[in-house]
Amino acid sequence: MNKNVQTFLACDKDFDKSNIVLFGAPFDGTTSFRPGTRFGPNAIRQESFGIETYSPYQGRDLEDISVCDIGDLDLPFGNTERALSMIEETTSDIVNAKKLPVMVGGEHLVTLPAVSAVLKQYPDLCIIHLDAHTDLRDDYLGETLSHSSVIRRVWDKIGDGRIFQFGIRSGERHEFEFAKAHTFLQAFDLQGFETLPELLGNTPVYVTLDLDVLDPSIFCGTGTPEAGGVSFKELLSALLHLSKLNVVACDINELAPVYDQSGVSTAVACKLVREILLTLKGG
Amino acid sequence: MNKNVQTFLACDKDFDKSNIVLFGAPFDGTTSFRPGTRFGPNAIRQESFGIETYSPYQGRDLEDISVCDIGDLDLPFGNTERALSMIEETTSDIVNAKKLPVMVGGEHLVTLPAVSAVLKQYPDLCIIHLDAHTDLRDDYLGETLSHSSVIRRVWDKIGDGRIFQFGIRSGERHEFEFAKAHTFLQAFDLQGFETLPELLGNTPVYVTLDLDVLDPSIFCGTGTPEAGGVSFKELLSALLHLSKLNVVACDINELAPVYDQSGVSTAVACKLVREILLTLKGG
Amino acid sequence: MNKNVQTFLACDKDFDKSNIVLFGAPFDGTTSFRPGTRFGPNAIRQESFGIETYSPYQGRDLEDISVCDIGDLDLPFGNTERALSMIEETTSDIVNAKKLPVMVGGEHLVTLPAVSAVLKQYPDLCIIHLDAHTDLRDDYLGETLSHSSVIRRVWDKIGDGRIFQFGIRSGERHEFEFAKAHTFLQAFDLQGFETLPELLGNTPVYVTLDLDVLDPSIFCGTGTPEAGGVSFKELLSALLHLSKLNVVACDINELAPVYDQSGVSTAVACKLVREILLTLKGG
Amino acid sequence: MNKNVQTFLACDKDFDKSNIVLFGAPFDGTTSFRPGTRFGPNAIRQESFGIETYSPYQGRDLEDISVCDIGDLDLPFGNTERALSMIEETTSDIVNAKKLPVMVGGEHLVTLPAVSAVLKQYPDLCIIHLDAHTDLRDDYLGETLSHSSVIRRVWDKIGDGRIFQFGIRSGERHEFEFAKAHTFLQAFDLQGFETLPELLGNTPVYVTLDLDVLDPSIFCGTGTPEAGGVSFKELLSALLHLSKLNVVACDINELAPVYDQSGVSTAVACKLVREILLTLKGG
Amino acid sequence: MNKNVQTFLACDKDFDKSNIVLFGAPFDGTTSFRPGTRFGPNAIRQESFGIETYSPYQGRDLEDISVCDIGDLDLPFGNTERALSMIEETTSDIVNAKKLPVMVGGEHLVTLPAVSAVLKQYPDLCIIHLDAHTDLRDDYLGETLSHSSVIRRVWDKIGDGRIFQFGIRSGERHEFEFAKAHTFLQAFDLQGFETLPELLGNTPVYVTLDLDVLDPSIFCGTGTPEAGGVSFKELLSALLHLSKLNVVACDINELAPVYDQSGVSTAVACKLVREILLTLKGG
Amino acid sequence: MNKNVQTFLACDKDFDKSNIVLFGAPFDGTTSFRPGTRFGPNAIRQESFGIETYSPYQGRDLEDISVCDIGDLDLPFGNTERALSMIEETTSDIVNAKKLPVMVGGEHLVTLPAVSAVLKQYPDLCIIHLDAHTDLRDDYLGETLSHSSVIRRVWDKIGDGRIFQFGIRSGERHEFEFAKAHTFLQAFDLQGFETLPELLGNTPVYVTLDLDVLDPSIFCGTGTPEAGGVSFKELLSALLHLSKLNVVACDINELAPVYDQSGVSTAVACKLVREILLTLKGG
Repeated sequence: MNKNVQTFLACDKDFDKSNIVLFGAPFDGTTSFRPGTRFGPNAIRQESFGIETYSPYQGRDLEDISVCDIGDLDLPFGNTERALSMIEETTSDIVNAKKLPVMVGGEHLVTLPAVSAVLKQYPDLCIIHLDAHTDLRDDYLGETLSHSSVIRRVWDKIGDGRIFQFGIRSGERHEFEFAKAHTFLQAFDLQGFETLPELLGNTPVYVTLDLDVLDPSIFCGTGTPEAGGVSFKELLSALLHLSKLNVVACDINELAPVYDQSGVSTAVACKLVREILLTLKGG
Repeated sequence: MNKNVQTFLACDKDFDKSNIVLFGAPFDGTTSFRPGTRFGPNAIRQESFGIETYSPYQGRDLEDISVCDIGDLDLPFGNTERALSMIEETTSDIVNAKKLPVMVGGEHLVTLPAVSAVLKQYPDLCIIHLDAHTDLRDDYLGETLSHSSVIRRVWDKIGDGRIFQFGIRSGERHEFEFAKAHTFLQAFDLQGFETLPELLGNTPVYVTLDLDVLDPSIFCGTGTPEAGGVSFKELLSALLHLSKLNVVACDINELAPVYDQSGVSTAVACKLVREILLTLKGG
Repeated sequence: MNKNVQTFLACDKDFDKSNIVLFGAPFDGTTSFRPGTRFGPNAIRQESFGIETYSPYQGRDLEDISVCDIGDLDLPFGNTERALSMIEETTSDIVNAKKLPVMVGGEHLVTLPAVSAVLKQYPDLCIIHLDAHTDLRDDYLGETLSHSSVIRRVWDKIGDGRIFQFGIRSGERHEFEFAKAHTFLQAFDLQGFETLPELLGNTPVYVTLDLDVLDPSIFCGTGTPEAGGVSFKELLSALLHLSKLNVVACDINELAPVYDQSGVSTAVACKLVREILLTLKGG
Repeated sequence: MNKNVQTFLACDKDFDKSNIVLFGAPFDGTTSFRPGTRFGPNAIRQESFGIETYSPYQGRDLEDISVCDIGDLDLPFGNTERALSMIEETTSDIVNAKKLPVMVGGEHLVTLPAVSAVLKQYPDLCIIHLDAHTDLRDDYLGETLSHSSVIRRVWDKIGDGRIFQFGIRSGERHEFEFAKAHTFLQAFDLQGFETLPELLGNTPVYVTLDLDVLDPSIFCGTGTPEAGGVSFKELLSALLHLSKLNVVACDINELAPVYDQSGVSTAVACKLVREILLTLKGG
Repeated sequence: MNKNVQTFLACDKDFDKSNIVLFGAPFDGTTSFRPGTRFGPNAIRQESFGIETYSPYQGRDLEDISVCDIGDLDLPFGNTERALSMIEETTSDIVNAKKLPVMVGGEHLVTLPAVSAVLKQYPDLCIIHLDAHTDLRDDYLGETLSHSSVIRRVWDKIGDGRIFQFGIRSGERHEFEFAKAHTFLQAFDLQGFETLPELLGNTPVYVTLDLDVLDPSIFCGTGTPEAGGVSFKELLSALLHLSKLNVVACDINELAPVYDQSGVSTAVACKLVREILLTLKGG
Repeated sequence: MNKNVQTFLACDKDFDKSNIVLFGAPFDGTTSFRPGTRFGPNAIRQESFGIETYSPYQGRDLEDISVCDIGDLDLPFGNTERALSMIEETTSDIVNAKKLPVMVGGEHLVTLPAVSAVLKQYPDLCIIHLDAHTDLRDDYLGETLSHSSVIRRVWDKIGDGRIFQFGIRSGERHEFEFAKAHTFLQAFDLQGFETLPELLGNTPVYVTLDLDVLDPSIFCGTGTPEAGGVSFKELLSALLHLSKLNVVACDINELAPVYDQSGVSTAVACKLVREILLTLKGG
């Protein structure tokens, strides 16, 4: 391979020959507290060579599967709607090519256009949402397109009973009340995640992983760290169940590398991307 | 509210209408290792807007209670005795006004004058002390007013059997021996904290929380991090028992923000201040 | 003063009694490289107590003048147009009250709405622009409202011959060509600044100071540091000439504190805000 | 003691009167990712005064045992073989003086020459290896002397069934396969460590502790942090079993202080050095 | 261009169509103080998109010239001789293809094999050396292949009167005495650099720029910062004279990004690489 | 030399055989803004091995002179008066032994007891004071023993006309007025420093160098950085004149290493200590 070609570890297969397509959505335009997730996807790509291709957890190797990393989108700055359109378009292209999209954010709002694109192909889509925050606000300072409203906007599209939230430990009172009425919400931990395969069977699933579901002890490189999260082992253990689900798309978001100068947060994200890729069907 | 008024999250009620009064004691004059806790209270105030007012752990909201944050004391530099006098005076003013003082340090020595002030009102006061360190030295390099002697000085005032120490994992041999004879000391963890409500009943209690009781994985922003501490979940779980105690005053200390450039330690402290405030009677 | 009221050093006068009104515009929504200027105005306010109110350069003291710091605007995230509207409105309010607005950014795009507001009152307004970058692009990735297009947008409003650029050392070739035709541009340094009083006489002047005009050796806390800039002494020396101009509004922008963990960049910005305030007529 | 003499906490006894000899091996010449372990031993020495000499875990005090810290070796830069020779020679000198060597690295390759020296005295030596990585590669980019090959090289010397690996969670597939055939490897955690005393009886044991066996939440100051590690409490709990083994030499390595600006990683290493010293026979 | 191809800014031309070939030599194996220059070339490549392709200093644009960035060499760790061989081989390949090599280090020792390769083609080669340090030691802790001996080793090859050193302000006494006898050495500043075109005429010249010749105020991201250096403007001004020399090869080295978390040092290096490329004949 | 003995570079001579005695005064008890200078002297000692013993500026070498570094004083925490007593006593011991004391701070207040001790031996002592700040306040928040009052306290002892201040650029108006009446004060730069040898002849001189006289571009590792300072070259150039004065004692203070993670400030301080030592008579 050309030395100047830089992909996520071992995700250097041709688009045509790949079942999975990885891309970066370096957008943090609605981040309300500390920005910087725009640097997440490139950091993950750069640092991925610090881990191995082989997973001793799964006994599988990235070298054995076919993933094409098509790089980061060239998103505009200061124009949320146009950025979201571009993400939706790319996701649609991948889905239309019968490939499984894996998006690396960026802030959590990037999930909205990706879900929109996938939903066209899979109208019965369910959402598995791992996060510290409910993301169920109706708006933030008047803006309805906000990282803190993203799951509410997804609910606007897919309605009750199809969103499964885990690890949630922060939100306004009304958000938790909204969840009671409209989503499944497991507060504080990941209990029940292991029941999802039985519950969802072959239903197409979109997995959105906000990395701040992790405790900030292991993942401080994010805009809004929230104590009391799950450990890496707990998260990994849950994610391994994905191999028994019909995951048709997923995203990993909210890494803001600048806030963790040790590099650990980026390394954690790289390892989780590897493990998720290895759970995917057709990978 | 005037945009320039900066209080801890939602602690913007009038003094007269508040049951709880929060203030900062930005003192680190006897810190023997790495100073910087003087910046703790302001950091907590500034960053508190990064968390929510609502606690999903308690189902309560800071908006529902009345807390007045009167800001930081203007303590002198280089004169320990005068600084301690000012803290004692402020604490007395709050207690005399029949309000519950919540002090944010600063180093741990700030607890001494606050206890002195509260003790006048509540002669049968007990102390609940969460810390990594015994703080039972008789002196440090000849100084008897030292952060590492603060609980010993408190003992000088209240005597045997009224100090309950948890999470302790560092000290000199003679300090642990002193504890055996004179205090209740739970080494390494918080076991037994849940028995305090039954044990103490309605006895007035002063809670002093040295944040380094937490494991440095989640709280590295402190002068003397000590591995092997309790997790955030363990600490929070213990603190929720405070709602069943007659807490008449408390302090949270030893955040030194400069040593944690990720901001996590400050966010952790903010969340704990919120949770403690929500456990207080009359809050 | 209430201990919780936090203004820029000594800028705590009543709005009605002040000739100068300072406010923060914490916007960085179009920043294309490294975001974080949203934290600039608060950082300046917090750290301003680290400098003195007295300027030995001017023999004047902030205590002698009347400035009201009204705090930061609550700008939305992800909606550039609405944020700019709010800035324009605030600036108009100040100008209409016959007071001199001093805005602290935020990214450089905040200058556009402020100029728009001031221009209504002073149709013959000229712009003095200190910066490392030309900011004369027509658009950035298709967006015409961009920090790198801000002076071009100002030019759209006021036209040829009324923009005076200093310290410029970065831009695309066509930007420099545009400058040759439409603005006065002094590349690399501040030569000629001292001739402005004679040149402009009593013309109303808007001064926009992009702090990255400074060499990154003294100001690394900015999104796009550009070597080869002016020294602090050179910049201060130039700015002292402002006392001989009819400055009717000004802004200081592009401090991103997170990139300078030593705190020097913020201290530099504080000192420059002090010096600029002390040069202002009616201050 | 002369104020300029700096040893690890309380390890200031005369060589002749000491049973244990501590030395630093500041070598990081084959580190493939992020270098900096050369600063490990000095950092541990400098920061050790931040912890106590007394261990409440063991009820023992460094003041009660006799350890001589002979300082850091003056290893050359850029010549791996010569550096390893110097380490082997120093270890031999200590072993020949009938003292127990405790080496502080440096990168993990320093274990190879130390084992070689100890093996001469104890031909039936077994190795206890705590690490995140297998370190069983045959070479790295063609180099057989590499930190990622060190245990493979040790195996070359001592053969099958004498290496006990714990906490391993990263490696290439073939390394795990090699381990299956030739070593005892406990993946992911330290289960079984407690059976070692019964298993090994009085067999002479060399303990090599790569600190990255710890989870990066508590130990981010290392070149290749690997999520999913053991907690400090788990590690300490395992290490306390060493007092029941015939440990004849040990090393602690892979602290790279620059990657953890909070200082926690160094403090963790200091505490582990103290605890290990206190478990040693004849200490 | 493929989004995953990452070259230094605009250096994305085909090898065959390029007159200049840029490559990275990520080697820091003999660094005696603080390592980390191995990350220099990749950092420069990544951050180069933060500057413009156009130089207002020269009125030239990288888009106008043909440069091929072939990426970083895969150098082994812990084997100095093999790493140097690989650098020599690559340099030879470029020179033999009648192209001008521009190497980005890495520590300064990388200059030795590059000079060796160039010397074969240009036996009358002279060296222009900008640095804080003499680099004229005969060995360092016994090693003759050392970053602090590199110019001495170059002298071994080309002898007296052909090395021109500028900006030197650190070394042992005997190194300065050696320089008096064998090289031209301008201490402390760059005086005389402007006379080189007249002095050297059409002689083939190898330029080696150790970035620590810059004052650490503007370039702290290096292993051995040495106060009292030249300013960016002084250095740039000198380098612009290169366009009047017959430069046949050059290198830029000693950036260690980790020591400058503001990113300024990397940005400075990027700008200097751009400016040097634009001075090269045939560029 | 024993590998565990750590002195400032080459300052390892016996006390009895040394003309100069260096010691650390790690005190920052009255620091009002950002503490941390307590770590200054040890940092200088540790990092001094990163520079050379030879000064190309003076053509002299530390190996040629006799300096004894006796280490840091064990100063108490929280008791300003006792700490100052210990400094005065040590300085007296050195002066009484007919040796020249060189003290490394710590905050600037350490100068007061050192001057007191020296004054007993040299009643006609003059003070040369390099600093960003006047240090002429009568008190700070009521404390007369403060780093910001130190020169005022010195004036209390020696009176008018004997204090020569350079580089001063910050203070309250009344401090500058005090200086006009009672000291020689050169604002902003070091002009006139070169006239001191003629002016002072053989008068005994105490030199106190507050390193924040340097511009923060080159020295950000200090509690109160103040832009507009002198460059390293300007400062060094001035200090070289000390060799023509009768310097009988000196101090270098206000390095707070934690605020400069690049290490440059410490390296700058090391180089200045070397240069000052080499200017001293009898050195």
